[in-house]
Formats: sequence, structure tokens, C-alpha cells
Amino acid sequence: MSVSVPSHPDRPRLDALRQVLEQGAMRQAARMLNALQPAEIAYLLESLPPQERELVWNLVEAESDGEVLAYLHDDVREHLIRLMDTGELIAAMGNLDTDDLADLIRDLPVAITREVVKSLDQQRRERLEQALSFPEDSAGGLMNTDTVTVRPEMTLEVVMRYLRRLKGGLPDITDNLIVVNRRGSYLGVLSLTDLLTHDPEDSVAEAMRLDVQAIPATWSAHEVATRFEQHDLVTAPVVDDEGRLLGRITVDDVMDVIRKEAEHQFLGQAGLSETEDMFAPVLLSARRRALWLGVNLLTAFLAAWVIGRFEATIQQVVALAVLMPVVASMGGIAGTQTLTLAIRGLAVGHLTSRNARWLFRKEMAVAALNSIVWAVVVALIAWLWFHDTRIALVIGAAISINLLAAAFAGALLPLLLERLGIDPALAGGVILTTVTDVVGFLAFLGLATVFLL
Amino acid sequence: MSVSVPSHPDRPRLDALRQVLEQGAMRQAARMLNALQPAEIAYLLESLPPQERELVWNLVEAESDGEVLAYLHDDVREHLIRLMDTGELIAAMGNLDTDDLADLIRDLPVAITREVVKSLDQQRRERLEQALSFPEDSAGGLMNTDTVTVRPEMTLEVVMRYLRRLKGGLPDITDNLIVVNRRGSYLGVLSLTDLLTHDPEDSVAEAMRLDVQAIPATWSAHEVATRFEQHDLVTAPVVDDEGRLLGRITVDDVMDVIRKEAEHQFLGQAGLSETEDMFAPVLLSARRRALWLGVNLLTAFLAAWVIGRFEATIQQVVALAVLMPVVASMGGIAGTQTLTLAIRGLAVGHLTSRNARWLFRKEMAVAALNSIVWAVVVALIAWLWFHDTRIALVIGAAISINLLAAAFAGALLPLLLERLGIDPALAGGVILTTVTDVVGFLAFLGLATVFLL
Repeated sequence: MSVSVPSHPDRPRLDALRQVLEQGAMRQAARMLNALQPAEIAYLLESLPPQERELVWNLVEAESDGEVLAYLHDDVREHLIRLMDTGELIAAMGNLDTDDLADLIRDLPVAITREVVKSLDQQRRERLEQALSFPEDSAGGLMNTDTVTVRPEMTLEVVMRYLRRLKGGLPDITDNLIVVNRRGSYLGVLSLTDLLTHDPEDSVAEAMRLDVQAIPATWSAHEVATRFEQHDLVTAPVVDDEGRLLGRITVDDVMDVIRKEAEHQFLGQAGLSETEDMFAPVLLSARRRALWLGVNLLTAFLAAWVIGRFEATIQQVVALAVLMPVVASMGGIAGTQTLTLAIRGLAVGHLTSRNARWLFRKEMAVAALNSIVWAVVVALIAWLWFHDTRIALVIGAAISINLLAAAFAGALLPLLLERLGIDPALAGGVILTTVTDVVGFLAFLGLATVFLL
Repeated sequence: MSVSVPSHPDRPRLDALRQVLEQGAMRQAARMLNALQPAEIAYLLESLPPQERELVWNLVEAESDGEVLAYLHDDVREHLIRLMDTGELIAAMGNLDTDDLADLIRDLPVAITREVVKSLDQQRRERLEQALSFPEDSAGGLMNTDTVTVRPEMTLEVVMRYLRRLKGGLPDITDNLIVVNRRGSYLGVLSLTDLLTHDPEDSVAEAMRLDVQAIPATWSAHEVATRFEQHDLVTAPVVDDEGRLLGRITVDDVMDVIRKEAEHQFLGQAGLSETEDMFAPVLLSARRRALWLGVNLLTAFLAAWVIGRFEATIQQVVALAVLMPVVASMGGIAGTQTLTLAIRGLAVGHLTSRNARWLFRKEMAVAALNSIVWAVVVALIAWLWFHDTRIALVIGAAISINLLAAAFAGALLPLLLERLGIDPALAGGVILTTVTDVVGFLAFLGLATVFLL
């Protein structure tokens, strides 16, 4: 699939809104803004610098506040929550689903949390407490409690009458009703399409599907997403250890999970968090990035220290100083390719300890081939440049060694880090380039010391 | 969200299957395999090295072949298609949806395509031709033609009777029926939940929703995904230029789009393609990676050439050779952070030419702050190491300059590349590190030549 640079489908509408804002026509802006979906308002807010963002936030109707907040990334959400008083926050939470409410509550100051919880009725409070008892990125944290349940012994006719009397109608994204027994244990699902196409005199037991397995509340968000993708699910029931129905997960929340996982992987490589606000305050951004720069400074000085061991050699053959970045850089690139492939394999679950040996052998074979090809190419260029056969041979050998070391580290690091409980997407790149820098300089300058002096 | 290293929910089942395969109990393996969903079989195949993969592929029931192929990444799919003869391929295509069929057809040799097309009935052939007339990554390429349409003047009672008589039942993932007029123009949708909860004597016109906008077939896959995410859609109707209904897009295909976009961004940074098979043949992998290594070799030698201009300086002050990688590396890291943020902003559409100036100013401010902090830190370390105030001052200044250049390039490159029609996710990183290497070496060695000699 070629993914060219995208333009947003609603760009014209958003651009029109921005223009109205710039002209200061606030009434008109408010009208246009509140005609958007909450997710679209959230999207617009995230693409605005802080001052304009606060301005637009004040134009959002109070009743949409909660939903808009639910769609925002953590950083932007915290920014806007800081602008609201307790009363506004309580009002905003009023019409949220339990899962969104639980997400927001986690970001509120404790004092306000207490007020919000106090303002809820008994049933909502219990549901909220249940949702908060699961980690945010688990099936329990993703689920909602707006289930519509039926009993197996009901006839479809009765079910249809029951639905028609349901005040407020069916919840958004309902593709099936959940069949439970008297004790609330999950039995299966009755899809709306089966309900519509079966004989109304059939019982739920006859029309229901038994092949939809419920998701345990303890599954990770990643596991939930995989299940949705592999079974083409729209919603899935969530159960506790004993098989009792707790709630359901809808595909819109799963899309968020996939999106966030992807952003985590992509941004993590540069030491950035997926909650990062593009328009975060300068001081906050500088402070966050400083950590990553600091870690990298340590590894850079480690590499410098290695070079420092060979000062005498460089003094005699300055060409080494000229060529040494080539050795380190080629190793870094080759290693990153293997590393990236392995991290992706781990993330989607293709790479396991069972087939790791196969991948390792394959990557080493690719590296062996590449190490010969590039050793010859680099040696040739070095010879053409410096007309020194020994320098050419030394750099060729160093390139070979570093490409092999790069593949070795690239293939094994992710598995090793995983076993140590360290996120490979975050730490893999730094450690890998440290390895390829150190090995590259060591091999090149070491060989040069032995063979050139 | 903390995304720890995931374990696959069906790992136990897949592991059991692998064990049975290793023991050579083929009958049992075949039974276990064919109890899986097509997507799960595809997943398993992708996590197997080539030989085992071919073995397992032969165990898959012929009737699932097509669906399994549809779920595979391009590389693995091509591998398995090469193992099949024309008869098997035609049989595999037999029960596929039009969108999947179109996807597969694009990967087949022309001779076989002709045979497959010949084997289709008139209606399927027309639908296939229509699907093939749109790019794979457009709304038209994503859509399916299995729509169930109703007319506005029908009563809900009549609609329900019509559904009950529908042979084969409703298509998978149907959350609404599409309302069209006599000429096939899209009018709105009748959701199944509204169908179930409204008075059966109501007309479709009374119960239908008018606020679901149809998606033009020419929209890009990215635009479709954004629409689904922002409007929490499960399915969406697709129309031609004149508003006539062509088909519909379902959320399972949208999840694939999101996943593939994410993989493109992540893998693209290392010059890998999102279709990359982790277990691709060694020669193929080596050849593909060679291109990227070649591009990087050019940039590495460009940096080496810059250093080469300063041989005389390095000869006199060898400490420069020791410290110069630190300057280049810090610039590379800082620039990558800005670049990554900007690429993400472009991809999700937050970054536009309208707010680019704001982001640019913010990133330059962050860089200015960081450039002071890190110049002091690096200068201090250099001074402690070499006890030379002038070297410390020179490296501090060089770090400052390079961090500012890095932010400048990191913020502007993606927008520039986008305007040139070059994918920033693919080319951004290489160009950026070339800039930071060259500027880093030039600033450090240049200042040293002026102030140290």
C-alpha cells in the first residue's frame, strides 16, 4: 500500500472554521464548531496552538465538553482540564459512558475526583468503581457497561417487543444482544441480523451464536485488538474469572488502541511519548527531551572514549579519523533494519522464542552477504581516495565485523529486552547504536593499530 | 497508555498446533488448523519460516484458501500463490468478496488473472472490474458491493419481511440498510437498531438517518480511516461523483488500513516496506536492504569528505577526532525528535501549512533552550577530559549550532518533502542525519581551525 501524504477529509470545514476564528466572528465560529462531532472538535483542538486552543475550548457547548475531553490525548486533555472549575467538570462528566468517565477520572486532581464521584448516582458510582479496578489498558479498562442482555428462553418476538419499549433506544454500536443466564453468566450472543431474519417464534436459544467467545477482563488491550482484528468483531462481551458478564468492548475503542500502539512504537524510537502534544509549552518539551538527549550523550561519550584509546594511532594516520564515521554509520543503519523488523515481529506476535532462532540465522545470513558486498565497496572507495591498500583492507574488514555485530545485536536485543521487562521500542535504538558505534570504532581503529603502525 | 510487550491471546492454541506439526501428526494438525478463523491461519502462516509455512499451507482446506490469502501481507501472499496452480487459484477466488478478490487479482500473473476473470459470472465480473478501476488504497478499492438497499417509501414491516426472505441472510458486519431512490442515489441509512425499535408501521423515510454522509469513492484510504475514527462508524456507504451508491466499507477493512499506515511509518524509517515478510529469503532481503545501505553510504562519505577538508587541523589537535562524533550524534538525536513529531503531525493531519509556523517557532525555542544546556554540559565534560578551555568552548559552540540546525531541518523537512511529493516517513531520517552530520563536523572542525590553530 502506498501511503502518500494525507489530506484530511474535513480540511475545508476546519479551514473555514479557522478563518472565521481569525476574523474574530465568535458567534459564527461557535455555531460551526458545535455542528461538528465531539471527535472532530477534539481533532481540531489538537491541531491548534495553546492560545487559540483555549479560545476554541471556551466556545464548545458545555454538554459536549465531556465527550470532547474523552477523545483528546492525555497532554491536551490535562491542559484543558486545568482551565475548568469543579462545577464545569462535574457537568462535563454527566453524560459520559463508564469507560470514558474512568479514563477522565484518572487525569483529575484527587479533590475534584471526590466531588465528581459524589455527584454520581449509586449505579453509576458502582460501575465507575468497577471500571477503575482494571488497568486502563486492559479489557476491563476498555469495556463499557451499557450491555443489553436477553435470556435464552425468551422468544425473538418477546425480544423485539422488549427492544421497542427500551427507553433511550439501543446503545451506539450495537450489533448483538448478549445472552446470559439467571446468574448473569455469559452464554452467547444474539446478533441483530439473526434476530431480524429468524422466525419470531424461535427462542433466543435457537437463534443465538455460541461461537463468539467472551473476552476475560484481564486481557491486555493489545490482546483485545488482535482478537477484534482476527475475528472481524464489532463488539465483544467481557467476563470476569467466573464467566459472569461485566460489559462489552466496542470497535471504536479498539481502533484507538491500534492507533495508540502504533504511535507508541513510532514516537518511542525518538524517546517521545504517544501522549505528546505537538503544541506543548516550550519548557515542558525541553525538559522531556532533555532526558533522551542525556541518555544519548552518555553513549556518545562512551564512543568518544573508545576513540580516545587510539589517539596515538589517529595522530599517525589522520585518514582514520576521516573514515571512522563511515564504519559506525553503516553498522547503525544495518542494525536498525534488523532491530525494526524484530520489534515489529514482537509487537504483532510473529516473533516468539520458538522461531527466534530461525530469524536470527536468517538475519546473520543477510548480514554475511551484505558484509561482503559493502566491505568491497567501501574498501574500493577508500582506496580510490587515499591510495593506501592497507587502509582499504582495514576499513573493509571493520565494515564486515560491524555489519555482523549489528545484525547480531539487532536480532537479539528485542528478545533480550522483552525478557528483562524493558520496552524494546523505547530502548532498542539507543542500545543498538551504542553497540554499533563502539564495535565500529573498536574494530576499525584496533585493526589499524595492529596492521598500519 | 503503557504498551508492554504483548503476548498473543491465542498463543497457547498456536503453540499446541506448532508442537503437533513438529511431531509430524499431520491429520491432527490439519484438524486443529482448519478450526481456526482464516485471519488466524494467515497470522500463523506469517509467523512460520518458509518450509514450515509451505507445509502448513498444504493442510489448509481449499475452501479457506482465498480468505486466508486475503489476510496475508503481500510478500507472504506472493510466496504462497507461487505454490498454487491455476485450478487451485480459481477455486480459491470462488467465494471471496469483491474487494478481497480485487486485492488478490492485483498480485496474480496476467495469464492466471485472465483465467480467473473468465471463470466468474457476469455480475461478479462487472463488480470486479469496477473495484479494479479504483486504486487499492482508495475508498473505491476498499469497498465491497454486498449492500442491502431499501426504498424510503417502504414500511418497516415490509423491510423486516424482506430481510426474513433474504437467502443467505445479511452480509457480515451489517449495522444498517442503505436507503436509495429509484435511480440508485444514496439518501440515508436505516440502522438495524432503529428498524427494531421503531413502530413497524412507520415508513423507512420516517425512521432513516440523514446525518450519515456517504464517502466518495475517490477518497484515500487514510481519509476513510479518519472518517471512521471520528464518527465511530461501523460501516459507511460509498458513492460515485453523482451520488449513486457503489458499495460500502466495513470497519474490519478500516482497522487494516490503520495497522498498515502505522507499519509503513515505523518500518519506513529503516527503509523497510510494510509488506516485508520477516522470513523472506536471504537473497531477497539482502537485495532490498542494499538499496538503503547504499543511500546511507553516500551520505556517510559526504560526512567523511567534510572531515577530510580538516585533516590538517585534526593532525594538530587529535582530541577533535575523539570528540567530533559527540557533536554529530547529539544533533542527530535532537533533530530526529523534532522530525518524528512533525511526521506524526503530518500523518494525522494536525500539522498544516497554517500552524507550521507556530510549530517551527516552538521547536526553535526548545532547541535554543536545549542548545544552551547541552553546550554547557558537553563543554564541561570536554574540559574535564582534555583540560583545554579553547576545545571546551569550541565544542560547546558547535553543539549549540548543531542543535539549532537540527531543529530547523527536523521541523521544515517533512513539510518540504511533502510539497515535493516525497514520503517524509521514508526519506526524512536519512536527509536529517546527513544535515546534522555535515553541520556538526563543519561547525566543530571549522571553529577549531579558526580558534585553535
